[in-house]
Amino acid sequence: MKNMQQLQSEGRSGLEDKHDGNVPRERDGVARVRLPNGAHRLAVTMETWDAIRSRRDVRSYTDQPIAPADLDRILESARRAPSSSNEQRWDFVVCTERRRLQDLAKVWRHGGHVATSAATIALVVPDAADAYTRESIQFDLGQAAMSIMLAAADLGIGSGHSVVEDQGRARRILGLPDDRFCALLIPLGYPADRPLHPIRRPNRRPFDEVVHRERW
Amino acid sequence: MKNMQQLQSEGRSGLEDKHDGNVPRERDGVARVRLPNGAHRLAVTMETWDAIRSRRDVRSYTDQPIAPADLDRILESARRAPSSSNEQRWDFVVCTERRRLQDLAKVWRHGGHVATSAATIALVVPDAADAYTRESIQFDLGQAAMSIMLAAADLGIGSGHSVVEDQGRARRILGLPDDRFCALLIPLGYPADRPLHPIRRPNRRPFDEVVHRERW
Repeated sequence: MKNMQQLQSEGRSGLEDKHDGNVPRERDGVARVRLPNGAHRLAVTMETWDAIRSRRDVRSYTDQPIAPADLDRILESARRAPSSSNEQRWDFVVCTERRRLQDLAKVWRHGGHVATSAATIALVVPDAADAYTRESIQFDLGQAAMSIMLAAADLGIGSGHSVVEDQGRARRILGLPDDRFCALLIPLGYPADRPLHPIRRPNRRPFDEVVHRERW
Repeated sequence: MKNMQQLQSEGRSGLEDKHDGNVPRERDGVARVRLPNGAHRLAVTMETWDAIRSRRDVRSYTDQPIAPADLDRILESARRAPSSSNEQRWDFVVCTERRRLQDLAKVWRHGGHVATSAATIALVVPDAADAYTRESIQFDLGQAAMSIMLAAADLGIGSGHSVVEDQGRARRILGLPDDRFCALLIPLGYPADRPLHPIRRPNRRPFDEVVHRERW
């Protein structure tokens, strides 16, 4: 949790929590988020370790919208992700219009959850010719995707990867330039089934199988 | 920050914070971490949003070792990362022996910081033939890498990607099977220059350039 000195030394408009004396005080797990209209609201946030353990694939969302400041924080997390030689070979198209989300849901046969998401972020990258560059872009994009999903989980917002099969349709809906393609959609929304909460036994290979000490 | 009810309902041996009444109490930004010998220690942790803004490329480390429970938490974060169809096409080899780290530092001409890291995690993946699978593995690996780096940042531990050019040498040092290769090293350690702290103006393309609303 930030202390007040840190808060006062920060304050990036619209993206940072800011202490100006007449807005609600922060407390454990609650941060002030400034809205575009200058007002503040409180947002529930988590410790990193809780966010990491709480993130799960969420494909069913309530109809609660994501506050603009929260959505900007999620996008800012993507922007800050590291990339090879800091090349940042990515753009993020964020969609919230219901009609557009319904159209986007059609770019993959299993992408129905895009239609009911509160927002969907399209991850757009250049269409590189050589295999090395394509793989490097995908690695970087994985880092940005994880930043998005953890920043969302921190706010109690679920996410669920959605693949793009029909590039032509995605290109038309998003208005993409010819030299780019949409590598992935990340639909976001508050979980309809149960809130995010640290998962005790994740569905993963056992720790001692996947982790090797000093040598394989 | 967790409340005590949550703490009591969790408790995965060695990896989770656990409340058993006779260990120090948690407070803002401080979590109990259980050591392999059953004792507890306090670790400084951050809010997710702070960890995301604090992570930076760190290539110069103090000689402070990483506590085993902290290293396990970082590895557990990697294990929990999402992957395509939950395939988990990855293994993590964690190295802390100084001699081994010095050897590993030679697999890339710019990898000198591996030698002085407190620990280095080798990300090992299968050597797939087709381009689609290779790209998919790289995307997943980026997600795992980001989990590692944010879990580390949460504990005040810096990280700095290191490439693998000499696969033969990496294979010998790590004892890798023939059908795997080391895709990346992630050296970890406490920053020698300055502690991790939220970065106010990251060296990135401007927000309004990289983020598009509804359409490109």
